[in-house]
Amino acid sequence: MNNNQPSVAIVIIGDEILSGRTQERNVQFLAEQFSELGILLNEVRIVRDDEAQIIHTVNELREKHTYVFTTGGIGPTHDDITAKSIAKAFGVKLYKNQEAVEMIEQYIRRTGRTPSSGTFITADVPERSELIHNGVSGAPGFKIGNVYVLAGIPDIAKSMFRNISDTLERGRKFESSSIKVHKGESAIRDMLHDTQEKHKDVQIGSYPFEVDGNWGTTIVIRGQELQKVKIVTEELEGIFNKENINFIREK
Amino acid sequence: MNNNQPSVAIVIIGDEILSGRTQERNVQFLAEQFSELGILLNEVRIVRDDEAQIIHTVNELREKHTYVFTTGGIGPTHDDITAKSIAKAFGVKLYKNQEAVEMIEQYIRRTGRTPSSGTFITADVPERSELIHNGVSGAPGFKIGNVYVLAGIPDIAKSMFRNISDTLERGRKFESSSIKVHKGESAIRDMLHDTQEKHKDVQIGSYPFEVDGNWGTTIVIRGQELQKVKIVTEELEGIFNKENINFIREK
Repeated sequence: MNNNQPSVAIVIIGDEILSGRTQERNVQFLAEQFSELGILLNEVRIVRDDEAQIIHTVNELREKHTYVFTTGGIGPTHDDITAKSIAKAFGVKLYKNQEAVEMIEQYIRRTGRTPSSGTFITADVPERSELIHNGVSGAPGFKIGNVYVLAGIPDIAKSMFRNISDTLERGRKFESSSIKVHKGESAIRDMLHDTQEKHKDVQIGSYPFEVDGNWGTTIVIRGQELQKVKIVTEELEGIFNKENINFIREK
Repeated sequence: MNNNQPSVAIVIIGDEILSGRTQERNVQFLAEQFSELGILLNEVRIVRDDEAQIIHTVNELREKHTYVFTTGGIGPTHDDITAKSIAKAFGVKLYKNQEAVEMIEQYIRRTGRTPSSGTFITADVPERSELIHNGVSGAPGFKIGNVYVLAGIPDIAKSMFRNISDTLERGRKFESSSIKVHKGESAIRDMLHDTQEKHKDVQIGSYPFEVDGNWGTTIVIRGQELQKVKIVTEELEGIFNKENINFIREK
Protein backbone atom coordinates (compact mmCIF):
# COMPACT_ATOMS: atom_id res chain seq x y z
CA MET A 1 0.00 0.00 0.00
CA ASN A 2 2.95 2.32 0.56
CA ASN A 3 4.63 1.82 -2.79
CA ASN A 4 6.03 4.93 -4.37
CA GLN A 5 5.33 6.89 -1.22
CA PRO A 6 8.24 9.00 0.03
CA SER A 7 9.49 7.80 3.41
CA VAL A 8 11.22 9.53 6.28
CA ALA A 9 13.01 8.73 9.53
CA ILE A 10 13.45 11.10 12.48
CA VAL A 11 16.58 11.13 14.64
CA ILE A 12 16.19 12.85 18.00
CA ILE A 13 19.59 13.76 19.39
CA GLY A 14 19.18 14.14 23.11
CA ASP A 15 20.89 12.86 26.21
CA GLU A 16 18.32 14.88 28.17
CA ILE A 17 15.53 12.64 26.84
CA LEU A 18 17.43 9.38 27.38
CA SER A 19 18.24 10.41 30.96
CA GLY A 20 14.52 10.95 31.65
CA ARG A 21 15.02 14.62 32.45
CA THR A 22 12.98 15.89 29.51
CA GLN A 23 9.81 14.72 27.77
CA GLU A 24 10.30 14.38 24.00
CA ARG A 25 8.23 17.05 22.28
CA ASN A 26 9.03 17.11 18.56
CA VAL A 27 7.94 13.73 17.21
CA GLN A 28 4.19 14.29 17.34
CA PHE A 29 4.29 17.60 15.47
CA LEU A 30 6.60 16.23 12.78
CA ALA A 31 4.59 13.01 12.52
CA GLU A 32 1.37 14.98 11.93
CA GLN A 33 3.06 17.09 9.28
CA PHE A 34 4.44 14.06 7.42
CA SER A 35 1.05 12.40 7.59
CA GLU A 36 -0.50 15.53 6.10
CA LEU A 37 2.09 15.55 3.28
CA GLY A 38 1.60 11.85 2.50
CA ILE A 39 5.17 11.04 3.57
CA LEU A 40 5.48 7.74 5.44
CA LEU A 41 7.22 8.16 8.80
CA ASN A 42 8.90 4.79 9.02
CA GLU A 43 10.83 5.09 12.26
CA VAL A 44 12.11 7.39 14.97
CA ARG A 45 15.38 6.94 16.81
CA ILE A 46 16.37 8.77 19.95
CA VAL A 47 20.15 8.67 20.30
CA ARG A 48 22.74 9.99 22.73
CA ASP A 49 24.89 13.08 22.22
CA ASP A 50 27.56 10.77 20.88
CA GLU A 51 29.36 11.47 17.63
CA ALA A 52 29.86 7.85 16.56
CA GLN A 53 26.23 6.98 17.27
CA ILE A 54 24.91 10.02 15.39
CA ILE A 55 27.12 9.34 12.35
CA HIS A 56 26.20 5.66 12.24
CA THR A 57 22.48 6.31 12.66
CA VAL A 58 22.26 9.10 10.08
CA ASN A 59 24.31 7.19 7.51
CA GLU A 60 22.18 4.09 7.92
CA LEU A 61 18.89 5.95 7.66
CA ARG A 62 19.74 8.31 4.80
CA GLU A 63 20.41 5.28 2.60
CA LYS A 64 17.05 3.74 3.46
CA HIS A 65 14.69 6.70 3.30
CA THR A 66 13.74 9.59 1.04
CA TYR A 67 14.39 11.97 3.94
CA VAL A 68 15.99 12.05 7.37
CA PHE A 69 15.13 14.76 9.88
CA THR A 70 17.21 15.35 12.99
CA THR A 71 16.35 17.54 15.95
CA GLY A 72 18.60 18.79 18.72
CA GLY A 73 22.25 19.55 19.35
CA ILE A 74 22.76 22.54 17.06
CA GLY A 75 23.24 25.23 19.71
CA PRO A 76 26.51 26.99 20.55
CA THR A 77 27.79 24.93 23.50
CA HIS A 78 30.37 22.13 23.72
CA ASP A 79 27.62 19.47 24.00
CA ASP A 80 26.07 20.57 20.69
CA ILE A 81 27.79 18.13 18.38
CA THR A 82 25.19 17.62 15.67
CA ALA A 83 26.66 19.89 12.96
CA LYS A 84 30.12 18.38 13.39
CA SER A 85 28.74 14.83 13.40
CA ILE A 86 26.61 15.40 10.28
CA ALA A 87 29.59 16.94 8.48
CA LYS A 88 31.62 13.83 9.31
CA ALA A 89 28.77 11.57 8.17
CA PHE A 90 28.97 13.27 4.77
CA GLY A 91 32.78 13.48 4.76
CA VAL A 92 32.84 17.28 4.59
CA LYS A 93 34.12 20.08 6.85
CA LEU A 94 32.36 22.77 8.84
CA TYR A 95 32.84 26.35 7.68
CA LYS A 96 31.59 29.76 8.79
CA ASN A 97 28.63 30.53 6.53
CA GLN A 98 28.41 34.25 5.80
CA GLU A 99 24.65 34.22 5.22
CA ALA A 100 24.21 32.60 8.63
CA VAL A 101 26.45 35.24 10.25
CA GLU A 102 24.22 37.92 8.75
CA MET A 103 21.05 36.19 9.95
CA ILE A 104 22.45 36.12 13.47
CA GLU A 105 23.56 39.78 13.23
CA GLN A 106 20.06 40.79 12.14
CA TYR A 107 18.57 38.89 15.08
CA ILE A 108 20.95 40.65 17.48
CA ARG A 109 20.09 44.07 16.08
CA ARG A 110 16.37 43.34 16.09
CA THR A 111 16.33 42.12 19.68
CA GLY A 112 18.94 44.52 21.04
CA ARG A 113 21.11 41.75 22.45
CA THR A 114 24.82 41.87 23.16
CA PRO A 115 26.90 39.50 21.06
CA SER A 116 29.32 37.25 22.91
CA SER A 117 32.06 34.82 21.97
CA GLY A 118 29.50 32.06 21.42
CA THR A 119 27.09 34.08 19.30
CA PHE A 120 28.38 33.11 15.86
CA ILE A 121 29.24 29.48 16.59
CA THR A 122 25.93 28.36 15.10
CA ALA A 123 26.96 29.90 11.77
CA ASP A 124 29.40 26.97 11.40
CA VAL A 125 27.65 24.52 9.10
CA PRO A 126 28.81 21.67 6.83
CA GLU A 127 30.15 22.45 3.38
CA ARG A 128 27.56 21.84 0.64
CA SER A 129 24.67 22.43 3.05
CA GLU A 130 21.81 24.87 2.59
CA LEU A 131 20.58 26.95 5.51
CA ILE A 132 17.13 26.53 7.04
CA HIS A 133 15.85 29.79 8.46
CA ASN A 134 13.80 30.15 11.60
CA GLY A 135 11.66 33.00 12.84
CA VAL A 136 12.32 32.54 16.56
CA SER A 137 16.08 32.77 17.09
CA GLY A 138 18.76 33.85 14.68
CA ALA A 139 20.55 30.51 14.48
CA PRO A 140 19.80 28.48 11.35
CA GLY A 141 19.33 24.77 10.75
CA PHE A 142 20.61 23.26 7.55
CA LYS A 143 19.96 20.63 4.90
CA ILE A 144 22.66 18.45 3.38
CA GLY A 145 21.78 15.77 0.86
CA ASN A 146 18.48 14.31 2.04
CA VAL A 147 19.16 15.15 5.71
CA TYR A 148 17.39 18.08 7.39
CA VAL A 149 18.93 19.29 10.63
CA LEU A 150 16.52 21.13 12.91
CA ALA A 151 16.81 22.64 16.39
CA GLY A 152 15.62 20.75 19.46
CA ILE A 153 13.52 23.55 20.94
CA PRO A 154 9.99 22.79 19.69
CA ASP A 155 9.07 26.34 18.61
CA ILE A 156 12.25 26.66 16.60
CA ALA A 157 11.94 23.17 15.11
CA LYS A 158 8.39 24.01 13.99
CA SER A 159 9.45 27.29 12.43
CA MET A 160 12.28 25.55 10.56
CA PHE A 161 10.00 22.77 9.36
CA ARG A 162 7.46 25.26 8.01
CA ASN A 163 10.23 26.99 6.08
CA ILE A 164 11.14 23.85 4.14
CA SER A 165 7.94 21.80 4.03
CA ASP A 166 6.91 23.14 0.61
CA THR A 167 10.09 21.75 -0.91
CA LEU A 168 9.37 18.15 0.16
CA GLU A 169 8.09 15.57 -2.28
CA ARG A 170 4.50 14.68 -1.42
CA GLY A 171 2.86 11.29 -1.47
CA ARG A 172 -0.73 10.29 -1.45
CA LYS A 173 -2.15 11.40 1.86
CA PHE A 174 -3.71 8.87 4.18
CA GLU A 175 -7.38 9.35 4.85
CA SER A 176 -8.78 8.24 8.16
CA SER A 177 -11.87 8.01 10.27
CA SER A 178 -12.28 6.98 13.87
CA ILE A 179 -14.99 5.37 15.97
CA LYS A 180 -15.12 5.17 19.73
CA VAL A 181 -16.89 2.34 21.55
CA HIS A 182 -17.28 1.73 25.26
CA LYS A 183 -16.25 -1.90 24.97
CA GLY A 184 -12.84 -3.38 25.62
CA GLU A 185 -10.77 -4.70 22.74
CA SER A 186 -11.48 -8.34 23.61
CA ALA A 187 -15.24 -7.89 23.14
CA ILE A 188 -14.97 -6.47 19.63
CA ARG A 189 -11.91 -8.41 18.53
CA ASP A 190 -13.65 -10.77 16.11
CA MET A 191 -15.66 -8.00 14.43
CA LEU A 192 -12.49 -6.00 13.79
CA HIS A 193 -10.57 -9.06 12.67
CA ASP A 194 -13.22 -10.17 10.18
CA THR A 195 -13.64 -6.68 8.76
CA GLN A 196 -9.86 -6.28 8.37
CA GLU A 197 -9.69 -9.65 6.58
CA LYS A 198 -12.35 -8.51 4.09
CA HIS A 199 -10.66 -5.16 3.40
CA LYS A 200 -6.92 -5.53 3.04
CA ASP A 201 -6.54 -2.09 1.44
CA VAL A 202 -7.32 -0.24 4.66
CA GLN A 203 -5.63 -0.56 8.05
CA ILE A 204 -7.91 -0.98 11.03
CA GLY A 205 -6.12 0.11 14.19
CA SER A 206 -7.50 -0.55 17.63
CA TYR A 207 -6.43 1.52 20.66
CA PRO A 208 -7.71 0.75 24.14
CA PHE A 209 -8.44 3.44 26.70
CA GLU A 210 -9.66 3.41 30.27
CA VAL A 211 -12.18 5.70 31.95
CA ASP A 212 -13.09 5.17 35.62
CA GLY A 213 -12.07 1.53 35.54
CA ASN A 214 -14.00 0.79 32.33
CA TRP A 215 -12.29 -0.09 29.10
CA GLY A 216 -13.12 1.42 25.76
CA THR A 217 -11.59 1.22 22.33
CA THR A 218 -10.84 3.81 19.68
CA ILE A 219 -10.91 2.27 16.24
CA VAL A 220 -9.02 4.08 13.51
CA ILE A 221 -9.59 3.23 9.87
CA ARG A 222 -6.80 4.46 7.58
CA GLY A 223 -6.29 4.14 3.87
CA GLN A 224 -5.28 6.05 0.77
CA GLU A 225 -8.80 6.11 -0.70
CA LEU A 226 -11.39 8.14 1.14
CA GLN A 227 -14.24 6.13 -0.38
CA LYS A 228 -12.76 2.86 0.91
CA VAL A 229 -12.28 4.31 4.39
CA LYS A 230 -15.91 5.41 4.36
CA ILE A 231 -17.21 2.00 3.26
CA VAL A 232 -15.27 0.16 5.97
CA THR A 233 -16.27 2.67 8.64
CA GLU A 234 -19.94 2.29 7.80
CA GLU A 235 -19.62 -1.48 7.66
CA LEU A 236 -18.18 -1.51 11.19
CA GLU A 237 -20.92 0.82 12.40
CA GLY A 238 -23.50 -1.55 10.90
CA ILE A 239 -21.96 -4.45 12.82
CA PHE A 240 -21.96 -2.46 16.09
CA ASN A 241 -25.62 -1.53 15.53
CA LYS A 242 -26.54 -5.18 15.05
CA GLU A 243 -24.64 -6.15 18.19
CA ASN A 244 -26.21 -3.33 20.22
CA ILE A 245 -22.85 -1.71 20.82
CA ASN A 246 -23.05 2.05 21.19
CA PHE A 247 -20.49 3.98 19.22
CA ILE A 248 -19.46 7.55 18.53
CA ARG A 249 -18.02 8.58 15.17
CA GLU A 250 -15.17 10.86 16.12
CA LYS A 251 -13.89 11.84 12.72
CA MET B 1 32.89 6.44 31.90
CA ASN B 2 30.19 3.90 31.15
CA ASN B 3 32.36 0.81 31.23
CA ASN B 4 30.80 -2.22 32.90
CA GLN B 5 27.51 -0.42 33.14
CA PRO B 6 24.51 -2.44 31.94
CA SER B 7 22.90 -0.88 28.88
CA VAL B 8 19.37 -0.96 27.52
CA ALA B 9 17.43 0.00 24.40
CA ILE B 10 13.68 0.70 24.24
CA VAL B 11 11.55 -0.26 21.24
CA ILE B 12 8.19 1.51 21.04
CA ILE B 13 5.85 -0.39 18.75
CA GLY B 14 3.24 2.05 17.58
CA ASP B 15 1.74 3.12 14.27
CA GLU B 16 -0.42 5.50 16.31
CA ILE B 17 2.69 7.43 17.38
CA LEU B 18 4.28 7.47 13.91
CA SER B 19 1.02 8.72 12.39
CA GLY B 20 1.00 11.66 14.84
CA ARG B 21 -2.30 10.57 16.39
CA THR B 22 -0.84 9.84 19.82
CA GLN B 23 1.87 11.46 21.95
CA GLU B 24 4.46 8.92 23.11
CA ARG B 25 4.13 8.50 26.88
CA ASN B 26 6.35 5.63 28.05
CA VAL B 27 9.90 6.70 27.32
CA GLN B 28 10.28 9.30 30.05
CA PHE B 29 9.08 7.02 32.84
CA LEU B 30 11.31 4.15 31.71
CA ALA B 31 14.26 6.51 31.17
CA GLU B 32 13.94 7.83 34.73
CA GLN B 33 13.79 4.30 36.11
CA PHE B 34 16.86 3.16 34.20
CA SER B 35 18.73 6.24 35.33
CA GLU B 36 17.78 5.44 38.92
CA LEU B 37 19.02 1.85 38.50
CA GLY B 38 22.31 2.93 36.91
CA ILE B 39 21.41 1.28 33.60
CA LEU B 40 22.50 3.28 30.56
CA LEU B 41 19.61 3.92 28.17
CA ASN B 42 21.53 3.94 24.92
CA GLU B 43 18.77 4.43 22.38
CA VAL B 44 15.04 4.40 21.74
CA ARG B 45 13.43 3.31 18.50
CA ILE B 46 9.82 3.91 17.55
CA VAL B 47 8.80 1.43 14.87
CA ARG B 48 5.67 0.60 12.88
CA ASP B 49 3.30 -2.28 13.58
CA ASP B 50 5.26 -4.26 11.04
CA GLU B 51 6.46 -7.78 11.75
CA ALA B 52 9.68 -7.60 9.69
CA GLN B 53 10.65 -4.26 11.22
CA ILE B 54 9.99 -5.45 14.78
CA ILE B 55 11.97 -8.68 14.28
CA HIS B 56 14.91 -6.88 12.68
CA THR B 57 15.00 -4.15 15.33
CA VAL B 58 14.72 -6.47 18.33
CA ASN B 59 17.31 -8.89 16.97
CA GLU B 60 19.78 -6.09 16.29
CA LEU B 61 19.34 -4.48 19.69
CA ARG B 62 19.30 -7.60 21.86
CA GLU B 63 22.79 -8.43 20.57
CA LYS B 64 24.09 -4.97 21.45
CA HIS B 65 22.58 -4.34 24.87
CA THR B 66 22.19 -5.98 28.24
CA TYR B 67 18.42 -5.47 27.98
CA VAL B 68 15.77 -4.55 25.45
CA PHE B 69 12.35 -3.28 26.53
CA THR B 70 9.44 -3.09 24.14
CA THR B 71 6.10 -1.38 24.71
CA GLY B 72 2.88 -1.76 22.76
CA GLY B 73 1.10 -4.25 20.54
CA ILE B 74 0.33 -7.00 23.07
CA GLY B 75 -3.45 -6.61 23.19
CA PRO B 76 -6.00 -9.05 21.76
CA THR B 77 -6.74 -7.49 18.34
CA HIS B 78 -5.44 -8.30 14.85
CA ASP B 79 -3.09 -5.29 14.89
CA ASP B 80 -1.37 -6.54 18.07
CA ILE B 81 1.53 -8.38 16.49
CA THR B 82 4.25 -7.97 19.10
CA ALA B 83 4.05 -11.42 20.74
CA LYS B 84 4.08 -13.17 17.36
CA SER B 85 6.95 -11.01 16.11
CA ILE B 86 9.07 -11.54 19.23
CA ALA B 87 8.46 -15.30 19.03
CA LYS B 88 9.72 -15.24 15.43
CA ALA B 89 12.73 -13.13 16.44
CA PHE B 90 13.68 -15.92 18.87
CA GLY B 91 12.68 -18.75 16.49
CA VAL B 92 10.03 -20.14 18.86
CA LYS B 93 6.24 -20.61 18.72
CA LEU B 94 3.39 -19.00 20.62
CA TYR B 95 1.47 -21.23 23.00
CA LYS B 96 -1.45 -20.77 25.40
CA ASN B 97 0.14 -20.24 28.81
CA GLN B 98 -2.02 -21.76 31.57
CA GLU B 99 -0.77 -19.39 34.26
CA ALA B 100 -1.76 -16.46 32.03
CA VAL B 101 -5.20 -17.97 31.47
CA GLU B 102 -5.66 -18.15 35.23
CA MET B 103 -4.49 -14.55 35.70
CA ILE B 104 -7.06 -13.40 33.16
CA GLU B 105 -9.78 -15.56 34.77
CA GLN B 106 -9.01 -14.03 38.16
CA TYR B 107 -9.23 -10.53 36.67
CA ILE B 108 -12.60 -11.36 35.11
CA ARG B 109 -13.96 -12.72 38.39
CA ARG B 110 -12.61 -9.79 40.39
CA THR B 111 -14.08 -7.17 38.06
CA GLY B 112 -17.29 -9.01 37.19
CA ARG B 113 -16.69 -8.81 33.45
CA THR B 114 -18.08 -11.11 30.77
CA PRO B 115 -15.46 -13.12 28.92
CA SER B 116 -15.59 -13.01 25.11
CA SER B 117 -13.83 -14.77 22.27
CA GLY B 118 -10.91 -12.34 22.52
CA THR B 119 -10.44 -12.55 26.26
CA PHE B 120 -7.78 -15.24 26.38
CA ILE B 121 -5.82 -14.24 23.27
CA THR B 122 -3.30 -12.38 25.43
CA ALA B 123 -2.46 -15.66 27.18
CA ASP B 124 -0.65 -16.68 23.97
CA VAL B 125 3.02 -16.01 24.64
CA PRO B 126 6.30 -17.28 23.16
CA GLU B 127 7.70 -20.63 24.31
CA ARG B 128 10.52 -20.21 26.84
CA SER B 129 9.16 -16.86 28.02
CA GLU B 130 8.33 -15.86 31.60
CA LEU B 131 5.19 -13.88 32.35
CA ILE B 132 5.27 -10.32 33.68
CA HIS B 133 2.26 -9.60 35.87
CA ASN B 134 0.42 -6.32 36.01
CA GLY B 135 -1.96 -4.96 38.60
CA VAL B 136 -4.23 -3.03 36.22
CA SER B 137 -5.58 -5.48 33.65
CA GLY B 138 -5.40 -9.26 33.62
CA ALA B 139 -3.24 -9.58 30.52
CA PRO B 140 0.44 -10.26 31.18
CA GLY B 141 3.60 -9.09 29.49
CA PHE B 142 6.52 -11.45 29.18
CA LYS B 143 10.30 -11.75 29.19
CA ILE B 144 12.24 -13.90 26.78
CA GLY B 145 16.04 -13.92 26.84
CA ASN B 146 17.06 -10.34 27.58
CA VAL B 147 13.91 -8.88 26.00
CA TYR B 148 11.09 -7.52 28.20
CA VAL B 149 7.75 -7.07 26.47
CA LEU B 150 5.46 -4.53 28.17
CA ALA B 151 2.02 -3.13 27.32
CA GLY B 152 1.65 0.21 25.56
CA ILE B 153 -0.86 1.72 27.99
CA PRO B 154 1.29 3.76 30.38
CA ASP B 155 -0.35 2.61 33.65
CA ILE B 156 0.01 -1.02 32.66
CA ALA B 157 3.58 -0.56 31.38
CA LYS B 158 4.50 1.05 34.73
CA SER B 159 2.91 -1.75 36.73
CA MET B 160 4.76 -4.36 34.66
CA PHE B 161 8.07 -2.53 35.01
CA ARG B 162 7.71 -2.32 38.78
CA ASN B 163 7.11 -6.07 38.88
CA ILE B 164 10.45 -6.89 37.24
CA SER B 165 12.72 -3.97 38.13
CA ASP B 166 14.20 -5.73 41.15
CA THR B 167 15.50 -8.51 38.92
CA LEU B 168 17.57 -6.16 36.72
CA GLU B 169 21.31 -5.88 37.09
CA ARG B 170 22.20 -2.48 38.50
CA GLY B 171 25.05 -0.21 37.52
CA ARG B 172 26.56 2.70 39.27
CA LYS B 173 23.93 5.39 39.39
CA PHE B 174 24.57 8.76 37.82
CA GLU B 175 24.62 11.66 40.24
CA SER B 176 23.55 15.06 38.99
CA SER B 177 23.01 18.64 39.92
CA SER B 178 21.50 21.46 37.95
CA ILE B 179 21.88 25.22 37.82
CA LYS B 180 19.58 27.66 36.07
CA VAL B 181 20.84 30.99 34.69
CA HIS B 182 18.93 33.72 32.91
CA LYS B 183 21.52 34.00 30.17
CA GLY B 184 21.40 32.41 26.75
CA GLU B 185 23.79 29.61 25.87
CA SER B 186 26.01 31.84 23.75
CA ALA B 187 26.83 34.12 26.67
CA ILE B 188 28.05 31.32 28.95
CA ARG B 189 29.47 29.09 26.27
CA ASP B 190 33.15 29.64 27.04
CA MET B 191 32.69 29.18 30.80
CA LEU B 192 30.97 25.84 30.24
CA HIS B 193 33.48 24.76 27.62
CA ASP B 194 36.51 25.53 29.79
CA THR B 195 35.01 23.82 32.82
CA GLN B 196 34.14 20.73 30.77
CA GLU B 197 37.72 20.60 29.40
CA LYS B 198 39.09 20.65 32.95
CA HIS B 199 36.75 17.91 34.22
CA LYS B 200 36.45 15.11 31.70
CA ASP B 201 34.92 12.73 34.25
CA VAL B 202 31.64 14.64 34.45
CA GLN B 203 29.28 15.61 31.62
CA ILE B 204 28.13 19.19 31.53
CA GLY B 205 24.88 19.46 29.60
CA SER B 206 23.40 22.78 28.54
CA TYR B 207 19.69 23.17 27.75
CA PRO B 208 18.26 26.47 26.56
CA PHE B 209 14.79 27.66 27.53
CA GLU B 210 12.76 30.74 26.72
CA VAL B 211 10.56 32.83 29.00
CA ASP B 212 8.76 35.90 27.61
CA GLY B 213 11.22 36.30 24.78
CA ASN B 214 14.26 35.98 27.02
CA TRP B 215 16.63 33.07 26.82
CA GLY B 216 17.89 31.13 29.78
CA THR B 217 19.96 28.00 30.20
CA THR B 218 19.65 25.00 32.46
CA ILE B 219 23.05 23.46 33.12
CA VAL B 220 23.09 19.83 34.21
CA ILE B 221 26.23 18.30 35.70
CA ARG B 222 26.21 14.49 35.66
CA GLY B 223 28.76 11.98 36.79
CA GLN B 224 29.20 8.75 38.68
CA GLU B 225 30.89 10.38 41.68
CA LEU B 226 28.78 12.69 43.79
CA GLN B 227 31.88 14.47 45.10
CA LYS B 228 33.07 15.29 41.59
CA VAL B 229 29.63 16.57 40.59
CA LYS B 230 29.67 18.80 43.65
CA ILE B 231 33.12 20.20 42.91
CA VAL B 232 32.26 21.06 39.30
CA THR B 233 28.91 22.57 40.29
CA GLU B 234 30.57 24.84 42.85
CA GLU B 235 33.29 25.77 40.40
CA LEU B 236 30.70 26.90 37.85
CA GLU B 237 28.82 28.84 40.52
CA GLY B 238 32.09 30.56 41.45
CA ILE B 239 32.58 31.58 37.81
CA PHE B 240 29.02 32.90 37.56
CA ASN B 241 29.51 34.91 40.76
CA LYS B 242 32.66 36.46 39.37
CA GLU B 243 30.92 37.35 36.11
CA ASN B 244 27.90 38.79 37.95
CA ILE B 245 25.58 36.19 36.46
CA ASN B 246 22.65 35.33 38.71
CA PHE B 247 21.99 31.64 39.10
CA ILE B 248 19.63 29.30 40.91
CA ARG B 249 20.75 25.90 42.09
CA GLU B 250 17.85 23.63 41.18
CA LYS B 251 19.10 20.34 42.47
